[in-house]
Amino acid sequence: MSNKPQLHTSLSPALLHLYDLNNSVVVIIDVFRATSTIASALYNGAKCVIPVDSVARAIEISKNIDGIAAGERDGQIAEGLQHGNSPLEYNREFIENKTLVLTTTNGTRLLHMALEKGADTIVSGSFPNLSAVCEYLIAEKKDVVLGCAGWKDRFNLEDTLFAGSVISEIKEHFTIHCDSSLMAEIMYQNNKDKLTKFAPNLTHYHRLVERFGLIEDIQFCLTRDNANILPVYKEGRLIVK
Amino acid sequence: MSNKPQLHTSLSPALLHLYDLNNSVVVIIDVFRATSTIASALYNGAKCVIPVDSVARAIEISKNIDGIAAGERDGQIAEGLQHGNSPLEYNREFIENKTLVLTTTNGTRLLHMALEKGADTIVSGSFPNLSAVCEYLIAEKKDVVLGCAGWKDRFNLEDTLFAGSVISEIKEHFTIHCDSSLMAEIMYQNNKDKLTKFAPNLTHYHRLVERFGLIEDIQFCLTRDNANILPVYKEGRLIVK
Repeated sequence: MSNKPQLHTSLSPALLHLYDLNNSVVVIIDVFRATSTIASALYNGAKCVIPVDSVARAIEISKNIDGIAAGERDGQIAEGLQHGNSPLEYNREFIENKTLVLTTTNGTRLLHMALEKGADTIVSGSFPNLSAVCEYLIAEKKDVVLGCAGWKDRFNLEDTLFAGSVISEIKEHFTIHCDSSLMAEIMYQNNKDKLTKFAPNLTHYHRLVERFGLIEDIQFCLTRDNANILPVYKEGRLIVK
Repeated sequence: MSNKPQLHTSLSPALLHLYDLNNSVVVIIDVFRATSTIASALYNGAKCVIPVDSVARAIEISKNIDGIAAGERDGQIAEGLQHGNSPLEYNREFIENKTLVLTTTNGTRLLHMALEKGADTIVSGSFPNLSAVCEYLIAEKKDVVLGCAGWKDRFNLEDTLFAGSVISEIKEHFTIHCDSSLMAEIMYQNNKDKLTKFAPNLTHYHRLVERFGLIEDIQFCLTRDNANILPVYKEGRLIVK
């Protein structure tokens, strides 16, 4: 048995309980769009991102700290909020030195699940910060669980493709006996040169582009290293490591 | 919106609750090896297969009806039983006109879950009876859920590949908006000509071949239409339709 750390991929929040998180770095993956938005906001100088599980809580916390309450439900800006879950919304002019209080359908929910299940460390991953995630995981030498947020517990391919991109880059450093990881890597290898071309096949693409016209969001979310920092969860907030 | 029936793929028993089974045909898929064994036994003339959830129950029922109690736990013949979960064990000489009472780690458990969740119809699918499954699903014109048994709720690739093979054959007849189905079909298309070559990549292959030497089982389970009947669940037993 190799003494390299283990890597597993959880394809849905409903499968997260199958993995031992206590000694693992958990990478929260919500490509469309929470973790891409988190990377974008922090890259553009946000002080921190506070992930919360409800709109009410986002409003309450942001009032107390003079932060920006933001979030989506079912792909749209959540009722009662002025700001949504688009990475393009959080440019430097708008977000620098501010605190973003964010609630989303899948990504922030998964983060709280990982927290409840006692994850050792939680980081946020997306194509915009792929390299930062990979460098960190290699350096840490701990077990890793790549946690796909999916869509309301259903499997989705964009999160799986990102898991596959991480695996492609770091697999020599890990022991991987996990069909989810094998599948994710194959899917990524087959599509890595044509991610935006592949995107119209995804159910989530239809939700975001055909219903809400968010094609530029999709392009941002599938572009590698365009917000290349590492968000780490510490005491209730995501900060740049 | 097309009025073709819908098709979804459930990648793990832990995701089955996400799908509406009440109006659906549920295909139970446990390639290594329960559903391959069920196809083999029925193809070779077994009167029926009674799927049960425990070894004790398999022994009890088989005594009452003079059946064959069989099953596995963790890939081996279950303690207390003389017969296991190998499709090769159930040749015509042995099984013709007999009743097989079968308990397995994943496949029979998933069948009982589908039953509890009120599935309209339950059939059993595997490469040995691929064509029979596809012809039935096309003829029925009902919604379909392809239910992968996985391994103790974890995703596995062999069940996914079988789901992909079904989708490849019948997709013109169904509305499919489901990333699981899309992924399954792509994985199958990429590997359909080399399934036995691909098999050593699977975690389950290591369990069956390296630990128990079951390479002939693997070959049987990945061969198309070598036991081409359709097992349908009716009143507690799987019979040939």
